[in-house]
Amino acid sequence: MKKLFTPGPLTTSAETKQVMLEDYGSRDAYFINLIAEVRSELLKIAELEKEKYSVVLMQGAGTFGLESLVSSVFDKDDYLLILINGAYGRRFQRMAEIHGVKHLVCEFPENEEITAEKIAHLMYQHSFTHCTIVHCETTTGIINDIESVGELCEQEDIFFLVDAMSSFGAVPINFNECAISALVSSSNKCIEGVPGFSFTIISNVLLQYAKGKSKTLSLDLYDQWKGLEKDGQFRFTPPVHAIVAFRKALELLKNEGGIKARSKRYQQNNQILIDGMSKLGFELYLNPEYQGYIISSFVYPNQFWFDFKVFYNKLNERGFVIYPGKLSDADCFRIGNIGQIFPEDVKALLAAIETVTNEMKEF
Amino acid sequence: MKKLFTPGPLTTSAETKQVMLEDYGSRDAYFINLIAEVRSELLKIAELEKEKYSVVLMQGAGTFGLESLVSSVFDKDDYLLILINGAYGRRFQRMAEIHGVKHLVCEFPENEEITAEKIAHLMYQHSFTHCTIVHCETTTGIINDIESVGELCEQEDIFFLVDAMSSFGAVPINFNECAISALVSSSNKCIEGVPGFSFTIISNVLLQYAKGKSKTLSLDLYDQWKGLEKDGQFRFTPPVHAIVAFRKALELLKNEGGIKARSKRYQQNNQILIDGMSKLGFELYLNPEYQGYIISSFVYPNQFWFDFKVFYNKLNERGFVIYPGKLSDADCFRIGNIGQIFPEDVKALLAAIETVTNEMKEF
Repeated sequence: MKKLFTPGPLTTSAETKQVMLEDYGSRDAYFINLIAEVRSELLKIAELEKEKYSVVLMQGAGTFGLESLVSSVFDKDDYLLILINGAYGRRFQRMAEIHGVKHLVCEFPENEEITAEKIAHLMYQHSFTHCTIVHCETTTGIINDIESVGELCEQEDIFFLVDAMSSFGAVPINFNECAISALVSSSNKCIEGVPGFSFTIISNVLLQYAKGKSKTLSLDLYDQWKGLEKDGQFRFTPPVHAIVAFRKALELLKNEGGIKARSKRYQQNNQILIDGMSKLGFELYLNPEYQGYIISSFVYPNQFWFDFKVFYNKLNERGFVIYPGKLSDADCFRIGNIGQIFPEDVKALLAAIETVTNEMKEF
Repeated sequence: MKKLFTPGPLTTSAETKQVMLEDYGSRDAYFINLIAEVRSELLKIAELEKEKYSVVLMQGAGTFGLESLVSSVFDKDDYLLILINGAYGRRFQRMAEIHGVKHLVCEFPENEEITAEKIAHLMYQHSFTHCTIVHCETTTGIINDIESVGELCEQEDIFFLVDAMSSFGAVPINFNECAISALVSSSNKCIEGVPGFSFTIISNVLLQYAKGKSKTLSLDLYDQWKGLEKDGQFRFTPPVHAIVAFRKALELLKNEGGIKARSKRYQQNNQILIDGMSKLGFELYLNPEYQGYIISSFVYPNQFWFDFKVFYNKLNERGFVIYPGKLSDADCFRIGNIGQIFPEDVKALLAAIETVTNEMKEF
């Protein structure tokens, strides 16, 4: 079985996939209980109480979850500040444009961290009601400073919306310190489930604000929550097998020692990767101080023998799947180290990269 | 393992689920080829050529696929005729309202079939550009006459949009005779895959008409198609495991003998069910001439001993999952006979119903 060094869909554990070998009725008590367990477990690992926050599961990819948020929590007079330093930040902009959300874009270079200091002047000049940020920009792997930005949002009484797609479950996030109003992630990221749905952890204040504001039927965040609360069921057919797998993945996260332990494993993976790649002569795109431990971007070696397609295919033949780049201003490839990836897997990848680059140089 | 006598998610074959035990990179060549295979196989079983029709897969439940259609193929001056005889017809109305599609509703009783004859006068009075219908209304199990309605749409030069969620793969549909512009179904219905995505088979004329008309990012039918055509990939993370399972399910459909053979098996199942239920004293909600062979609605027996919840739970304990009703004017429960359900399973269900009703009468 190939090892996926991608930002997801990831290599998941055999146990997680094993539970998909059974079919369940989507309106059956067993499955309804299972949905409730998933929702309450997500609240628990976020260290939140149901008096203040709720969990809404939404069918589809992570982007469906983000769009369910952007198309559900804005009134016509609201004003959104969109913080961008990569493709996923720009996706927020695209959604705001489509749904007619009044917004201001504040875009930084892709290798520059977003902090409160850099945006405070904007906050003071404008009367924003909402602010969006991407926690770990998968474009580069940079981790933005959601603590300081969140604190600023709280001071200014602004709803703070966080795309934590690639970070939730692996990077500890303190909802209170970051004053998060809503956070979106998906089943196939650091919880290590299979793809099929996203989840939003949303403050009850913002959730109530969303009532009746949705611009779609399927992606109505409030109605989806209401349905789940009413009879424990999804309004429309849920991805049953993916949800059953996710429940197992949550159990395995607990067994591993929770977010702290997983964070430690991913950090180890990442350190071994970065050290090893450096020894092999590959350069990180980001300044190391901004480099997160989820995914890393490496600059294409500026040498005659390097051809990404050949590099990718040769690694693939050896059972290692890496990821192309997504930067607007530099040629990079990416290597993720999340999922069921352990130090020995990273070492095996590095050995394969050494072999492959030697082959390519000789050719 | 319980047998699901529901309209989906269904009991699927062990082989279909087995292939979900492996993880694939969503941008990897193997998976990209697999998506292409699924798309071309769907065209094949619909007996269509790619010069005239295209297949678009969309993450999420069937409703997401329907909404991707309704939110993508209407211009502001278009005029939609919505034909309704159940909850799924009304869902079209809800979506038209949300997306500001100018429309006229033509609603029939839930036990009455929709035919061209009944709506021709409306077609002549108004200048519709589009018309929606539900092929098999899962609310009751009724099959509407899409041949005559489609022919009328063709005469009037109207785009004909068909919700064939519960029928595609089991009820033969002739796209040309029915003059279908777009048909939506989902992975967890008669193809017998697991839930996770929908698919739309759309005429290239309507597809081109949809360019730039979408009201959302995630559900943009044209852009989704364009992405699939460009590099074979989904724009946003696909439900990899559900798609891999669907490919296997398509293979098994072929092995069974295609739509014709599957149709025959479902008809057998349904005949055994209806005869058996009649012998046990249960009455069909629909006039038998309108009764489809996908799912059947039975009226609650008007007798002191009958309590649906008890009935449901007792059958469930014995490993048979049936389905509650959804009618607005009658108390019914539903029994589906699609999925990996064979005559012996239906007989086993009937035996269980006999035991359970006897127990309930004695109590």
